[in-house]
Amino acid sequence: MKKLPGKTVERLSEYRRVLLTLISQGKNYIYSHELASLLHITAVQVRRDLMLIGYSSGIRKGYDIRVLVETIGRVIDSETPLNVAIIGMGNLGRAVSSYFRGKRSKLNLVASFDNDQQKTGKVISGVRCYDVREMENMIKELNISIIILTVPPDYARSTCDDAVRFGVKGVLNFTTVSLNVPPTVYLEEYDMVTSIEKVAYFVKESIR
Amino acid sequence: MKKLPGKTVERLSEYRRVLLTLISQGKNYIYSHELASLLHITAVQVRRDLMLIGYSSGIRKGYDIRVLVETIGRVIDSETPLNVAIIGMGNLGRAVSSYFRGKRSKLNLVASFDNDQQKTGKVISGVRCYDVREMENMIKELNISIIILTVPPDYARSTCDDAVRFGVKGVLNFTTVSLNVPPTVYLEEYDMVTSIEKVAYFVKESIR
Repeated sequence: MKKLPGKTVERLSEYRRVLLTLISQGKNYIYSHELASLLHITAVQVRRDLMLIGYSSGIRKGYDIRVLVETIGRVIDSETPLNVAIIGMGNLGRAVSSYFRGKRSKLNLVASFDNDQQKTGKVISGVRCYDVREMENMIKELNISIIILTVPPDYARSTCDDAVRFGVKGVLNFTTVSLNVPPTVYLEEYDMVTSIEKVAYFVKESIR
Repeated sequence: MKKLPGKTVERLSEYRRVLLTLISQGKNYIYSHELASLLHITAVQVRRDLMLIGYSSGIRKGYDIRVLVETIGRVIDSETPLNVAIIGMGNLGRAVSSYFRGKRSKLNLVASFDNDQQKTGKVISGVRCYDVREMENMIKELNISIIILTVPPDYARSTCDDAVRFGVKGVLNFTTVSLNVPPTVYLEEYDMVTSIEKVAYFVKESIR
């Protein structure tokens, strides 16, 4: 299959999250317009995305949720699990760890790193915390291909550069600093201030 | 000015974040292609966005960074500051608080809420924590128009419904649960698992 656009991958991931919740609530089938409404998008968008991943939609009682979850997994998940590490175990790193750990079978959170001797050598929020100075060894030993960056801004650039040099292939940057990586590495950046400002803009527009 | 699309507001917010960093580094002017490259987008996109907010681009030494920051602020910020509260002061709530507090002059973080008696009545990560049972009073008394939701999933729906009933106009949802709000309220949802899965997808595609 051709490589999918980033936005499509995001939506597929969101479909799966909603579908997994529905399964846990005992639901077996869903129509495209129901799924669309749960995610505040159009049914046309849902059908287009699912057609793209080869899921047919001609069934009267709607999509079979379990089959759809499996189909999405076959497309977006890696066949062999990928290993993930969190770098920076402050509040945000610990939140990400508690939040993410065990959520997806094809992504293993195998390590975290910090420079605080109070944290290193311990299991924090369910994951072992190593000294950042061990990063090179551990990235290689544990075959870590993805890092989640939750360090203070001043450490963001150098930590990312180090991790890339040690072989990671994907970076999720939660710091306030925009980063650069070589073209062979995938970088995703998220700044929560942007989301807050977006909400504020629409609130301002609605009350003016 | 006509209401801007959400994606444009996001980019304007990101431009400002990068520009503020550049000011702190002593830079005064920037070309559209430099700004574009810092945000991994095209110069055409940058110029189109800035044209949309009435910022002209015909200057030889590039955009005046301070003027551009002011122009963006006039468009996306509220004239009178908006008051924001965080609901749920676990790791994520505390991270958001430390991260966001004082970052933007037109957004005041005025309160946080939790149901844990160990937290209520104290100042946590720089913001006073109130008992969730005081939410109705405090939202009205402090004129809180935006909430950031960082409660455990089981509390997400009821807490959001309560806050909306008490008068908030914008919700930033960081929980794993998709929410619904009336059309008069703006809802923005962010699930970090989606970002992690997106990175994983592109890593998988690059190493296969």
